[in-house]
Amino acid sequence: MNLKLVFHLLGIVSWLIGLTMAFSLPAAWPDIGGQEKFEVSGFGALVTSIVVSLFVGILLRHFGRGAPETLYRKEAMAIVGLSWVLATILGAMPYKFAGVKYTQDASGRPVSMGIAESLFESQSGFSTTGATVLTDIENEAWVPRCILFWRSSTHFLGGLGIIVLFVAVLGQGSAGKALMRAEMPGPSKEGSHERMQHTAWIFAAIYCGLNVILAVLLKLEGMTWFEAICHAFGTMATGGFSTLNSSLGGFESLGEFESALIEYTVIVFMILAGTNFTLMYLTLLGKPLALLKDPEWRVYISIIVICTLLVLIFGTWVNNERDADSLLPPGGDYEHAFRDGLFQVVSILTTTGFGTADFDQWHNFSRALLLVLMFVGGCAGSTGGGMKVIRHILFVKILRLGIEHSYHPSVVRHIRLGGESIVDADVTRNILLYFGLVALIFSLSTQLLVGIEPDSTWATSTPPQPVANKLIDSASAVAATLHNIGPGLGIVGATQNYAAFSAPSKLLFTFLMMLGRLELFAVLVLVIPAFWRDR
Amino acid sequence: MNLKLVFHLLGIVSWLIGLTMAFSLPAAWPDIGGQEKFEVSGFGALVTSIVVSLFVGILLRHFGRGAPETLYRKEAMAIVGLSWVLATILGAMPYKFAGVKYTQDASGRPVSMGIAESLFESQSGFSTTGATVLTDIENEAWVPRCILFWRSSTHFLGGLGIIVLFVAVLGQGSAGKALMRAEMPGPSKEGSHERMQHTAWIFAAIYCGLNVILAVLLKLEGMTWFEAICHAFGTMATGGFSTLNSSLGGFESLGEFESALIEYTVIVFMILAGTNFTLMYLTLLGKPLALLKDPEWRVYISIIVICTLLVLIFGTWVNNERDADSLLPPGGDYEHAFRDGLFQVVSILTTTGFGTADFDQWHNFSRALLLVLMFVGGCAGSTGGGMKVIRHILFVKILRLGIEHSYHPSVVRHIRLGGESIVDADVTRNILLYFGLVALIFSLSTQLLVGIEPDSTWATSTPPQPVANKLIDSASAVAATLHNIGPGLGIVGATQNYAAFSAPSKLLFTFLMMLGRLELFAVLVLVIPAFWRDR
Repeated sequence: MNLKLVFHLLGIVSWLIGLTMAFSLPAAWPDIGGQEKFEVSGFGALVTSIVVSLFVGILLRHFGRGAPETLYRKEAMAIVGLSWVLATILGAMPYKFAGVKYTQDASGRPVSMGIAESLFESQSGFSTTGATVLTDIENEAWVPRCILFWRSSTHFLGGLGIIVLFVAVLGQGSAGKALMRAEMPGPSKEGSHERMQHTAWIFAAIYCGLNVILAVLLKLEGMTWFEAICHAFGTMATGGFSTLNSSLGGFESLGEFESALIEYTVIVFMILAGTNFTLMYLTLLGKPLALLKDPEWRVYISIIVICTLLVLIFGTWVNNERDADSLLPPGGDYEHAFRDGLFQVVSILTTTGFGTADFDQWHNFSRALLLVLMFVGGCAGSTGGGMKVIRHILFVKILRLGIEHSYHPSVVRHIRLGGESIVDADVTRNILLYFGLVALIFSLSTQLLVGIEPDSTWATSTPPQPVANKLIDSASAVAATLHNIGPGLGIVGATQNYAAFSAPSKLLFTFLMMLGRLELFAVLVLVIPAFWRDR
Repeated sequence: MNLKLVFHLLGIVSWLIGLTMAFSLPAAWPDIGGQEKFEVSGFGALVTSIVVSLFVGILLRHFGRGAPETLYRKEAMAIVGLSWVLATILGAMPYKFAGVKYTQDASGRPVSMGIAESLFESQSGFSTTGATVLTDIENEAWVPRCILFWRSSTHFLGGLGIIVLFVAVLGQGSAGKALMRAEMPGPSKEGSHERMQHTAWIFAAIYCGLNVILAVLLKLEGMTWFEAICHAFGTMATGGFSTLNSSLGGFESLGEFESALIEYTVIVFMILAGTNFTLMYLTLLGKPLALLKDPEWRVYISIIVICTLLVLIFGTWVNNERDADSLLPPGGDYEHAFRDGLFQVVSILTTTGFGTADFDQWHNFSRALLLVLMFVGGCAGSTGGGMKVIRHILFVKILRLGIEHSYHPSVVRHIRLGGESIVDADVTRNILLYFGLVALIFSLSTQLLVGIEPDSTWATSTPPQPVANKLIDSASAVAATLHNIGPGLGIVGATQNYAAFSAPSKLLFTFLMMLGRLELFAVLVLVIPAFWRDR
């Protein structure tokens, strides 16, 4: 392991973080952030964090002097994992330095974010999860607006990092590789250095362009610039951090028509954010049919259509005995029910996590369906998290072949995807391995969470939650963080947050968010001693 | 597909079922069954069922005349799956014909078992699950004692079927094969016909012998012969059907010492029932060290020890805020707590499902742990159901190798088990495939169950269950039937049963029990059209 090269590149990451923090500074001024007066504490915290980041960068680059040019696989994995750890730590500083208040204690006194809370919020931002410990983000005395802007900026940076690092540079991860090869014009099995750099720039440009377009649209639809930019960041990165306590549902105050317009706009852009960037590039090149011909995108859209229909059927036709307001209130508005259903399905599937309705009050079938959708995720090569649609397509094909294999052991057949057959035997093993790891991590983490989190968390949550739901709530919290969604069920439901959890649980969530975002391996190797020992 | 051969062998299965039913006839007499008077309805139902079974057997053998001698893989799979279907249908007749009452309606009138209930109970018996729809088995007016004896006999038959069919004839399934090869003396990769028949007879003899020994022990410890035989059947088949409403916990009326003795005896025999029969055979041959050297058995015992300790720690030390009686009541009896914890861990791990305590009232960590144990199961080559310990050992080894592979792609390493390396690449694929199938079947079935079972089932259950628990209760019910355990959480908890569910859900459970018992493939192929079309 050549640590010089690792230090060198981590230094650049530090500088990038510090540079991006500077963009949050203007939001400290009243005429930009929309608050009442200049935010001394937020401004100071940001400046301190910028100075520290730049200094850490200088230090790391100093240790990395004379690094070789060549990057081996192990160094690449270490850099990806460690740069994420570094970004999380640096990105947590503004919350801690500004003394952000995230909740109140039993006697009503506000509580400042500790190290666990700051790391959680920072990781949630970079991993584009959107889970939060902040219970009142509209209160300027608790959360300075410029810190809120930094919070949304971490989404933007995280999304950009995923698009550039994974999609362009590392070739979309093991699952997307097969698809990438089929879709990208020309011989591109591994791709030359120049070619990858070229792709990285194009993808970054598409990503930034979509952010700008969405921000302008949201501004035109009635948001302030501050809100528009923050929500554009949250949407295009499939993050989910909002600037309102009731997430996107809070814009109903702008009027019924404006809020509907905003929600449909965000639905469209969430779908785009969960789409393979290669396909968007091809569409821009004048080949819009590439989208419709892509097997992954077709399944992705089908999932949205079918699940929205199921949610609507179970929310309107099937007898609903749950007491609180359901998807369709008595004498209800079908357009509103459709919009809520579609919004929530898209929000969960793309792993964004924005909310316009409390889906935890919906029919149990819909709750279960949304929990299952958490395990699906967006398309490979998008900013969406989760396991990715392509892995599920291949998974089902592999299982079908496996059943056939049980009574025809001698038949050798390849998996076919969009007319081409995948001969690579590693694909089968990798897909199954990925599902196995997710199942193991999910069940162990849930068991661990149930063990370390006291039952009293449920009783003292606001509003109190039945402790009988501890298992399902914990499972949903693990799924929502591991797959980078944000909201789960019950204590972490659409109207809830992660504030009530103990510090060890918050650190567990922080680890899970990173694990999911980097598609397991780049993080798992970091905790294996042999990875560091071996040459 | 040569259907003649299928018919021929199914005919023999019919006769075997009819023959075994005859053994339940004596329990209709008061001096044997322990009831007050001769059971006309039970006796008549059994005689009718015997006649039907023998006739069906004659019919099937008539259609199967002139069948060839050779059995191909496809026919073997079809016979295994179809004979289980046939046994379930024939075995359901006594319940239906005797008009067994399983619950009462809103106005307090008893309700007779329908087709869905009878099939459920029959499948639960043959698959050695032990899940029941009967709410009052101690009421002779509802359930004739000879029918109760038949119910336990299905466990015996099911356990025997698994031991003979899978362990001896089919070579322990794909997972156990690797182990079998290592353990069995001599060259036995596939095994000759005589050799397999020989093994089948030995295993059957060990199984019957253990049943006899356990029945005698239980009789000596205070049970009646009727109870002793039924509980021996329930234990050695890892089934779980009892003759008392409160399962094994009901023998506390025999006195504190006797009930403790009975529980420890059953614990030991449950552990034996979950042990690979090859190891028991080797022990009988004077090689008891084979047990201690076997990697699967060592992990199996370690799981029991560690999980019992965890249950005790969380049940006694960790603050428990749940209101009802916990593992250790105030001023509690540590021996009793230890016995309850050990009993429940062994009962769930071996997939028996007997109960001595309401574990649903224990600490949430223990509840979650028992839910996880449902996915583990007994050893390969035992009567225990579930996924089997060996699959989990190999699974963890495969995942570890997979993580190493991610940064050392060129390294080729084999999985090692008990000092020998497994070179067969199919093992890796088969294990991962099995976990993938279980994950898919588990999540789809839970989603389906939540959809088809109305919320009102929870509200009208006795006692009413919170509908907010629908997701976790449904998931546990699917796990408890798919892995052939019996009790789950909440509405199917230790003190509950499956009576409240709707007929479609009961049929879903019936299918899941068979799916799990036959290790998925033999059942899955039956529903694939191509399996029947292809030659």
